[in-house]
Amino acid sequence: MSHTDTPSPRTRLVREPQRAVYDRAEAYRILDEAFLCHVGFVADGQPYVIPTSYGRDGDVLYIHGSAASRMLRQLDAGVPVCITVTLLDGLVLARSVFNHSMNYRSVVVLGTATLISDLEGKLRALRLLSEHILPGRWEDSRQPNHKELKATSVLRLPIDEFSAKVRTGPPIDDEEDYAFPTWAGVLPLEMTVGRAINDPRLEPERALPEYLQGYTRKR
Amino acid sequence: MSHTDTPSPRTRLVREPQRAVYDRAEAYRILDEAFLCHVGFVADGQPYVIPTSYGRDGDVLYIHGSAASRMLRQLDAGVPVCITVTLLDGLVLARSVFNHSMNYRSVVVLGTATLISDLEGKLRALRLLSEHILPGRWEDSRQPNHKELKATSVLRLPIDEFSAKVRTGPPIDDEEDYAFPTWAGVLPLEMTVGRAINDPRLEPERALPEYLQGYTRKR
Repeated sequence: MSHTDTPSPRTRLVREPQRAVYDRAEAYRILDEAFLCHVGFVADGQPYVIPTSYGRDGDVLYIHGSAASRMLRQLDAGVPVCITVTLLDGLVLARSVFNHSMNYRSVVVLGTATLISDLEGKLRALRLLSEHILPGRWEDSRQPNHKELKATSVLRLPIDEFSAKVRTGPPIDDEEDYAFPTWAGVLPLEMTVGRAINDPRLEPERALPEYLQGYTRKR
Repeated sequence: MSHTDTPSPRTRLVREPQRAVYDRAEAYRILDEAFLCHVGFVADGQPYVIPTSYGRDGDVLYIHGSAASRMLRQLDAGVPVCITVTLLDGLVLARSVFNHSMNYRSVVVLGTATLISDLEGKLRALRLLSEHILPGRWEDSRQPNHKELKATSVLRLPIDEFSAKVRTGPPIDDEEDYAFPTWAGVLPLEMTVGRAINDPRLEPERALPEYLQGYTRKR
């Protein structure tokens, strides 16, 4: 799985090709650290972009179809989608405005998403989604019943056509700008986890489970 | 500006309408706290979703066109886009898997983006973008020259057709699930700012400017 894929004309990076990453293993590291994606689809010529969570199983992404019911209306044999995942790592402050940038890691997956119709498949995908976001939670929750499974739609997108883009490190200024009298460097940004807040209806003796202590996306 | 807009058929929320916010002031608070958006556009029937930064000036959003050169290829009188901004506030852990959710605030803006062609207009938009991300930085950097301005493309999208969606607070479980023996509540997530990292080529005497100290997106 850790081979380098050849980009298609649609996923070959046009801008800043030096930031391109076509290595599947690196793309998967990004997909595994994040859990929020933005899914794009088209309805009546208008693009829509909807935030939702996802899970990965090998070379397949799963998303909740419920996040995009407009998309599902037109779903028969499948719907062309773009799933984009972005991790923001910092503001990059160069001497020149023009060379300001951001440090980030992003993955774009293009393809045709299809609905999972069988309940077995849905259950498996939902478990993957749940474990992707919070490992251990599935076994510690009341799992979906038949009615809920039927009411849930899950989409499947093979990770065939994809690209990743990564920027790290300090700003790169034009040589003549290094003398410009300003501060330059990186302001790191990170998603951090706060202290868990008990549900007001939680029984007082219920302790925070181990899988929630020290929760982090870092792999 | 703080009036409630009527949703169009395209921005009326289909799923979870109880989370819908059509109030322009609240949408603008979300747009002003974030600075990363995901812009969706269509090329040859395929949707693309690209992360990029943006700025807001009244009822207009500005984005770097360079972030989406595929989009610009087909740009004449304008291109249909969707700009989506998402702030993730927490994982919502219910007793049932089915009622798990996230706390978030998101805005979706639909419309036709047009290129800014005059250099004056570009300069103004770039300044807005810069000040949106980091107030004070523009005056403290080497500002764009004629050549850079010409090489930069900036898109303008009026905030006419939009919707926002907000979820806050504890999980909502089905009544019969409240007795299920598990922890329930919210795990807060937040974007935090790390300690600024000097560019390796920074002069040693250059101190961190005031506008970078205590940088936060909270308004």
